[in-house]
Amino acid sequence: MSTAGIILIGDEILSGKVADENARLLVEDLRSLGVALKKITVIPDVLDEIAATVRNFSDTFDHVFTSGGVGPTHDDLTMEGIARAFGGKVVRHPELERLLRGYYGERLNERNLRMADVPEGAHFVDGDSANWPVVAMKNVYILPGVPEIFRRKWMAIRDRFADAPYVLRNVFTHAEEGEIAAHLDAVVAAHPAVQVGSYPRFDTSEYRVKVTLESKQGDEVERATAQLVELLGTRVIRVA
Amino acid sequence: MSTAGIILIGDEILSGKVADENARLLVEDLRSLGVALKKITVIPDVLDEIAATVRNFSDTFDHVFTSGGVGPTHDDLTMEGIARAFGGKVVRHPELERLLRGYYGERLNERNLRMADVPEGAHFVDGDSANWPVVAMKNVYILPGVPEIFRRKWMAIRDRFADAPYVLRNVFTHAEEGEIAAHLDAVVAAHPAVQVGSYPRFDTSEYRVKVTLESKQGDEVERATAQLVELLGTRVIRVA
Repeated sequence: MSTAGIILIGDEILSGKVADENARLLVEDLRSLGVALKKITVIPDVLDEIAATVRNFSDTFDHVFTSGGVGPTHDDLTMEGIARAFGGKVVRHPELERLLRGYYGERLNERNLRMADVPEGAHFVDGDSANWPVVAMKNVYILPGVPEIFRRKWMAIRDRFADAPYVLRNVFTHAEEGEIAAHLDAVVAAHPAVQVGSYPRFDTSEYRVKVTLESKQGDEVERATAQLVELLGTRVIRVA
Repeated sequence: MSTAGIILIGDEILSGKVADENARLLVEDLRSLGVALKKITVIPDVLDEIAATVRNFSDTFDHVFTSGGVGPTHDDLTMEGIARAFGGKVVRHPELERLLRGYYGERLNERNLRMADVPEGAHFVDGDSANWPVVAMKNVYILPGVPEIFRRKWMAIRDRFADAPYVLRNVFTHAEEGEIAAHLDAVVAAHPAVQVGSYPRFDTSEYRVKVTLESKQGDEVERATAQLVELLGTRVIRVA
């Protein structure tokens, strides 16, 4: 089972100027790809924080995705932060410089070339590389913060992360959490491969608790669901 | 200037079953209160991760807000995680036990009493404490994951975090980032108290870049904005 972490880099999210769309997209897509997302962190545009967080995530998870902080201005520190995470520097990449010069032509400003600076040892991930490749450093995939470009880049590389799918069952009950907690314990103990979640509602919806049972081992999910349904008896509203 | 961190605890967000509403509310409210939000982290229902993250945040920021993982079921590990963060245990609080017994009456299940378990040394924060107080451990405010209850609890305590307000100016330009990067550097160098952000757009909106200038020192924001407007000249579309 492969694991992933997401790092959102940018004061704009922490200060409420921009609402995140990128992590939201990745959360849903990673789940449908069968990748276990283990952590999301939002940090400011601060070099040492970027470096420390990236290094920690890279050591801990199979895949790491960063969003934001790539561009030509003073607050774009992601490339340097990632280089520092691995004890290296940023270097100007000749292929990216060529693409930039082709794109900007006469309008090219010296500062635009900063977008050709990548961590030493970085590699390109295929996708729409004729246009502009996704840059990765080891297992860290460096994506831009602007949502429409983030989405396009991610869609170009997403399929390479596909893993065995998750199987999910939902059991809805009109019992309260306290009433079913011991039954949930029994299911959790009998089926360690199944992740069991309990989500109460306090509004006027049809159910009081939704229990989720999820695993990559589909047969275990079915057995755990059957056990829970038997334990809850008439308190089950429906299984989906 | 006071700082804050947010910890969202729960597999349901990482697995895409539930979209976060609580951090979003806090991000906006903390900014309007003048509190500098420095980090948001989303972690799973894993005891040691809760403990390590809470301890780190508590040591690093003035205020820490946790969301989720409070309740009577096996996946509700926040109280124990926070207790562990500070080297303590959870203890059953007599006042909370009394409230629970009053609320549930004859329907009380033994497991409901787990909701009276709090980290040793925790204190109550006022607000709607006649109903159910907000529990805090040192500078860590423990809030529930269910959005409607999260909101109610937060509204009951939010005013106590009020700090000096931020002053924000936005400068919109039709120039590209590469073209204005050196000017931004000059403004950043001349006004270290001002946080300068540069946010490009690539769609068909009226502007190409929005520059934000923000500080608690309002006069410095005005001076930095004036400097930038002069440097950009006719490339400025408007200031807001």
